[in-house]
Amino acid sequence: MSTYTPKHFTVTFPQEYIAHVEINRPQKLNAFFEEMWLELRTLFETLSPDPSVRVIILSGTGKAFTAGLDVQAASTGLLAPNETGDPARKAAHLRRHISSFQACISAIEHCEKPVIAAMHGFALGLAVDIATAADIRICAADTRFAVKEVDIGLAADIGTLSRLPKVVGSFGWVKDVALSARLFGADEALRVGFVSSVFEDKEVMVQGALEMAGLIASKSPVAVQGTKEILNWSRDRPVEDGLRYTSVWNSAALQTQDVQTALLSGIQKRKATFEKL
Amino acid sequence: MSTYTPKHFTVTFPQEYIAHVEINRPQKLNAFFEEMWLELRTLFETLSPDPSVRVIILSGTGKAFTAGLDVQAASTGLLAPNETGDPARKAAHLRRHISSFQACISAIEHCEKPVIAAMHGFALGLAVDIATAADIRICAADTRFAVKEVDIGLAADIGTLSRLPKVVGSFGWVKDVALSARLFGADEALRVGFVSSVFEDKEVMVQGALEMAGLIASKSPVAVQGTKEILNWSRDRPVEDGLRYTSVWNSAALQTQDVQTALLSGIQKRKATFEKL
Amino acid sequence: MSTYTPKHFTVTFPQEYIAHVEINRPQKLNAFFEEMWLELRTLFETLSPDPSVRVIILSGTGKAFTAGLDVQAASTGLLAPNETGDPARKAAHLRRHISSFQACISAIEHCEKPVIAAMHGFALGLAVDIATAADIRICAADTRFAVKEVDIGLAADIGTLSRLPKVVGSFGWVKDVALSARLFGADEALRVGFVSSVFEDKEVMVQGALEMAGLIASKSPVAVQGTKEILNWSRDRPVEDGLRYTSVWNSAALQTQDVQTALLSGIQKRKATFEKL
Amino acid sequence: MSTYTPKHFTVTFPQEYIAHVEINRPQKLNAFFEEMWLELRTLFETLSPDPSVRVIILSGTGKAFTAGLDVQAASTGLLAPNETGDPARKAAHLRRHISSFQACISAIEHCEKPVIAAMHGFALGLAVDIATAADIRICAADTRFAVKEVDIGLAADIGTLSRLPKVVGSFGWVKDVALSARLFGADEALRVGFVSSVFEDKEVMVQGALEMAGLIASKSPVAVQGTKEILNWSRDRPVEDGLRYTSVWNSAALQTQDVQTALLSGIQKRKATFEKL
Amino acid sequence: MSTYTPKHFTVTFPQEYIAHVEINRPQKLNAFFEEMWLELRTLFETLSPDPSVRVIILSGTGKAFTAGLDVQAASTGLLAPNETGDPARKAAHLRRHISSFQACISAIEHCEKPVIAAMHGFALGLAVDIATAADIRICAADTRFAVKEVDIGLAADIGTLSRLPKVVGSFGWVKDVALSARLFGADEALRVGFVSSVFEDKEVMVQGALEMAGLIASKSPVAVQGTKEILNWSRDRPVEDGLRYTSVWNSAALQTQDVQTALLSGIQKRKATFEKL
Amino acid sequence: MSTYTPKHFTVTFPQEYIAHVEINRPQKLNAFFEEMWLELRTLFETLSPDPSVRVIILSGTGKAFTAGLDVQAASTGLLAPNETGDPARKAAHLRRHISSFQACISAIEHCEKPVIAAMHGFALGLAVDIATAADIRICAADTRFAVKEVDIGLAADIGTLSRLPKVVGSFGWVKDVALSARLFGADEALRVGFVSSVFEDKEVMVQGALEMAGLIASKSPVAVQGTKEILNWSRDRPVEDGLRYTSVWNSAALQTQDVQTALLSGIQKRKATFEKL
Repeated sequence: MSTYTPKHFTVTFPQEYIAHVEINRPQKLNAFFEEMWLELRTLFETLSPDPSVRVIILSGTGKAFTAGLDVQAASTGLLAPNETGDPARKAAHLRRHISSFQACISAIEHCEKPVIAAMHGFALGLAVDIATAADIRICAADTRFAVKEVDIGLAADIGTLSRLPKVVGSFGWVKDVALSARLFGADEALRVGFVSSVFEDKEVMVQGALEMAGLIASKSPVAVQGTKEILNWSRDRPVEDGLRYTSVWNSAALQTQDVQTALLSGIQKRKATFEKL
Repeated sequence: MSTYTPKHFTVTFPQEYIAHVEINRPQKLNAFFEEMWLELRTLFETLSPDPSVRVIILSGTGKAFTAGLDVQAASTGLLAPNETGDPARKAAHLRRHISSFQACISAIEHCEKPVIAAMHGFALGLAVDIATAADIRICAADTRFAVKEVDIGLAADIGTLSRLPKVVGSFGWVKDVALSARLFGADEALRVGFVSSVFEDKEVMVQGALEMAGLIASKSPVAVQGTKEILNWSRDRPVEDGLRYTSVWNSAALQTQDVQTALLSGIQKRKATFEKL
Repeated sequence: MSTYTPKHFTVTFPQEYIAHVEINRPQKLNAFFEEMWLELRTLFETLSPDPSVRVIILSGTGKAFTAGLDVQAASTGLLAPNETGDPARKAAHLRRHISSFQACISAIEHCEKPVIAAMHGFALGLAVDIATAADIRICAADTRFAVKEVDIGLAADIGTLSRLPKVVGSFGWVKDVALSARLFGADEALRVGFVSSVFEDKEVMVQGALEMAGLIASKSPVAVQGTKEILNWSRDRPVEDGLRYTSVWNSAALQTQDVQTALLSGIQKRKATFEKL
Repeated sequence: MSTYTPKHFTVTFPQEYIAHVEINRPQKLNAFFEEMWLELRTLFETLSPDPSVRVIILSGTGKAFTAGLDVQAASTGLLAPNETGDPARKAAHLRRHISSFQACISAIEHCEKPVIAAMHGFALGLAVDIATAADIRICAADTRFAVKEVDIGLAADIGTLSRLPKVVGSFGWVKDVALSARLFGADEALRVGFVSSVFEDKEVMVQGALEMAGLIASKSPVAVQGTKEILNWSRDRPVEDGLRYTSVWNSAALQTQDVQTALLSGIQKRKATFEKL
Repeated sequence: MSTYTPKHFTVTFPQEYIAHVEINRPQKLNAFFEEMWLELRTLFETLSPDPSVRVIILSGTGKAFTAGLDVQAASTGLLAPNETGDPARKAAHLRRHISSFQACISAIEHCEKPVIAAMHGFALGLAVDIATAADIRICAADTRFAVKEVDIGLAADIGTLSRLPKVVGSFGWVKDVALSARLFGADEALRVGFVSSVFEDKEVMVQGALEMAGLIASKSPVAVQGTKEILNWSRDRPVEDGLRYTSVWNSAALQTQDVQTALLSGIQKRKATFEKL
Repeated sequence: MSTYTPKHFTVTFPQEYIAHVEINRPQKLNAFFEEMWLELRTLFETLSPDPSVRVIILSGTGKAFTAGLDVQAASTGLLAPNETGDPARKAAHLRRHISSFQACISAIEHCEKPVIAAMHGFALGLAVDIATAADIRICAADTRFAVKEVDIGLAADIGTLSRLPKVVGSFGWVKDVALSARLFGADEALRVGFVSSVFEDKEVMVQGALEMAGLIASKSPVAVQGTKEILNWSRDRPVEDGLRYTSVWNSAALQTQDVQTALLSGIQKRKATFEKL
């Protein structure tokens, strides 16, 4: 099992094949500073190929999923006042910085295993960047969301603007919340399809996440990981390109023993056991 | 009128310009084996240019739309146990097989005429591949759906993973059902936009499909077929490419007499009659 | 402030930074003829870089947002009966005409400032082309919508077929309304995500639009305009291309003084004032 | 070995794994009419999966590779004088006809095995459509080429305009020959990279084609067929998409026994023998 | 015939259907300032639909095609020293300025008629942006070219970097000349395919351009204009998208009378006369 | 200056702003094993943002640029004989391995500074993957090249098949060398545009590379790095997307002081000095 030990995240294995990652800086409502997103990347890159992990739950300790960027920390970094100096050179540094930050959050999307973002309390700004990079989003009834970035003078640049239009169906709603930075609640998040389930409180939600994760973890990992990958590829490309990629992918995947295992256990009405991947 | 007579489908013409295709293997809940998807392709390629057909309804006889792949038949074909042998050569055969299977189902999408998938009972696995290739999806209240493939150890490869994210708005919901293979009902299908109407039972649904088909069939076929084509093209490409394709398409289509016919019948408040196409 | 004075639109500035454009041909339910869409283009191209404008509301005077194309006018123009003559040469003229018409409506999408389409009464045909080019759509409870074009014998070619599948989540619903030309109301429009809010009547809706516009106008224009641009770019491209474009965009935008202004006003709990853009 | 016997083509197997297809209508300079391109499609679809074929040479009998479309035959078909009738309906028929014709020629590109077009005498119009769909082009010194279509009043629509800009490097040269329909010879074809070798006459060229084919046929068919497929995919897509497709493709292909066979024969300096594919 | 009279260009009609545009600021080696590129746009937008124009030749008066941007003029405009002020707001103005400038040069590419850039003397910086937007490039033996922009501290932004890699075959050569700003001559330009012909001097070149233009102008304008459009579309898209666009385009274009005219004149061995377009 | 010290590469700084990287395993003709490509990645990721580096030359010590993959080492790794075991699970490991290997070589393309590949002796297999990821390719007259991979039973998967068709103009030549694995020399490499210069021997070539590098290093680094980035972006995307990206990029880059510096030094005919980047 993965042995990487981040400082600002706890990783537990509540059940076989399920990793539970908790953002763990509760005294600051799990607000992120640079060390944290670098850790997040390393953590997901470690879990991604780990054969003892099949599903990952991502949630926050304390009162929030995350309140987003730690603005105080950023104000001496990415958001530091503009010193005089060559704007083109400053732009080069900003591009590197933003690209590196984006890559950290994209590690969730690139992780081979499905990731369930389980949110409660506050899920502001960077929380939405993170959640849209996950595969499934659920929340507690008390969650308050916002695409908060315009409120600090910037266009959200760590993924929300690229992924949110592909995650929910109503482009007008996306523009509404992204241009106004207004808060929205769990009901609205459910109605527009941003989350797929709302639970009465955090505890029940984590329980729900575990059940969902347990169900997915019981399936063939060859099938599950192929499904995540093909869905992400197809989302961004014409149907024809999606179909071709699928047939190339499955030309290897269908050679798995898991198909026989699954068919047999189906006939025998018993739980299948699949080799690690 | 088309004279192709498939073995496993019935084709009737309940009304002028409307073809009703029924999957007809009720003793097996309309489960598909290879001969059937080859027939499906030929059937839709025959109906596509048939000038006496303007809309197609696709439904199932007996107790199900279709229970999906006939797993028993497949277990001696596509899903046969992996014999020893060169995995690269086996992959080449699988690619050909999957690509050919995909092309059969894509015949529904490529059909020039709109296709309404009218589902009841069970709509599992391959049923979703078929339904997402159709233009409009409706169902009876009793329908039970599932993206079933992970349950038999594979990533759905006949179109569901490429088309479902483009057919409904919530990408998280798509991942939820595709990764868990869980059943969902008509209400959920309606809520997420997978179907556009739910009818109380199969009989009422077929009646509803006929009314919808009748309405579409009463319009100019030049307009209707152009609309299907341009929507499918635009779905997969940037808005600018969609606009340009539209203007090139309509540079021929607007020369139709149908515009005058439609305008005149509008003024005269009578039903327009359009030449066959 | 912009001094362009169109004949068929009124432009008022009900509040600092908010332009209210009204389609103003109420005696014809605001139906469009060529002079109007040319004016619309010039108008939005004038407002786009105007530093005193941050948000634009687009609505209609009288009893309708717009009943769409003025069919009577079009019947001697774009939709004129097909004279004999070389169909290829006629096609060239039609392509130019359609492309020019499309470019006029796309001026709304290309406008750097967010546009809120506020609809009431009738919103038929061209109304949907216009509304999908806007950023946010809201409506009064009495609004009756239709993708009307097939009823006059043509595939909608001024943007609806390219943009509607990207604006709402259910592709089946898009095909349903586009193939049948059937009317739908405010409730359905809200349910499928075509509009994001429904107001009891036109007056309340305009008030609602003003509040929404006021909120957006109070934010950093650097952040707001970047958000619109990046969302539109990302909608049409893979996530990776969206992320890269965002980092290049923000490498200049993050150098704005607005970030400091916004952060400071956040700390001091007072309204921020941002320099014009 | 394939047993399909076309009427207008001869197929021989001059050497193990090499099929030699000759266009065989010498009395008409191998000009094509509809039956021929339908045969061409069937022929290449038959050869594509045939395990006893690894490379295909395509040449012409008599005095020409092909003089292109049989204009006389076409003048009662695709190019028939425009009867009165609805231009939009005529356009629908033309679209079907052109798309079907294109698909016949694309069968060469989609063929899993490399195709060498070996040209002599005349290679006009459709000859270029055919040649650009092949993988490698060689010619005899006497060959006279032309993108002839504008000379009969039409834009080349069977592939030349889509493939030629991707086959040679100079876009200006492509426009020069496509807009002027001028003849060009073997030297020019070599200089711009349209052909990769010029041979003194047809006989020597066929010998050269056989040597090239023999060399390719001696390699692992897993490696060769993967190389063709990945090159075609990558040509049309961003580098990143090409790289990803390659890694998915090779995840199956690298499991082949051929790698060991090739390595071993390399060490032992003897000719490798690879299992059929 | 077009009656637009630009100040800095002369337009003559040396032959039926041929427009000869000359950049006419010889005292400054035809260096461009803003008024000129605005005129260029208007000029090409005027010529584009003019039925009496079928081909356009673009050359320069005096000793140069053009020495590029008038740096002196630009140094008080686009390239003015960076005043203090908000870099994000300055970036917004620069984006508008560059996009507008690009659109002016793209008018050459978007022009429906083929454009032959005939270059002599100096063809520096903006000259390459202009030439790559043209369809065919030819030059006099004395021409000296350079992608000059890095020498004034900027990446070429008016089209060279986007179009040059698609106009010539060697991407390494493109990077060589674009990164070094070094001069290259007519021979090198011919060898890499940047120009398709080199003439001994300007006079001979203009004669050569006229002959080439005359040849193109003698063809069906339906065929010629379709060829330009389809080649440009296909260059930027996958082969499959090119083929489909072609079939939709030609579904109208093949209905032209020009096909019969061309066929008949071919049989009768006489010059065809085509109706204006 | 970068302080990373790889084991299998030497890095020297022969001139201000120029890094010279040499592959340094001459006893094995610089054949690569895994440790080496991991080092290559780290090395280029270190040089990429290093402000004291403006251009990088990549060459080989001893008798070869590189003979490619160390097949002996690979035969116990990536190319190890296929053990029995689940082919789908083996595929997952191969995908990770290939993707990681590709990313190492792509570090050259992603490096912000131009990279000149200077080749001599042998440049086989992986050498071509590496060279196509560089910006400019030059070689000594004795160099022998081959796309060698089919000779060891596999399709080249580390970049050659995705990049070579975009680096040279003749797609037929690419297929010729990639399908046959045949050797080709410096003259052929120059003729097809794979290299842009051939030098008489290695020493002269390195001198030539230094001169070229020196010229590029003397330009504004803002201009040079923007040029590399925009060319790579544009190569893979439609012209319109290239133009837009350019205008967004330059909206920051044009604010540089370098433009004034360059203009002034141009007027004063003296060498410009640019601030580090």
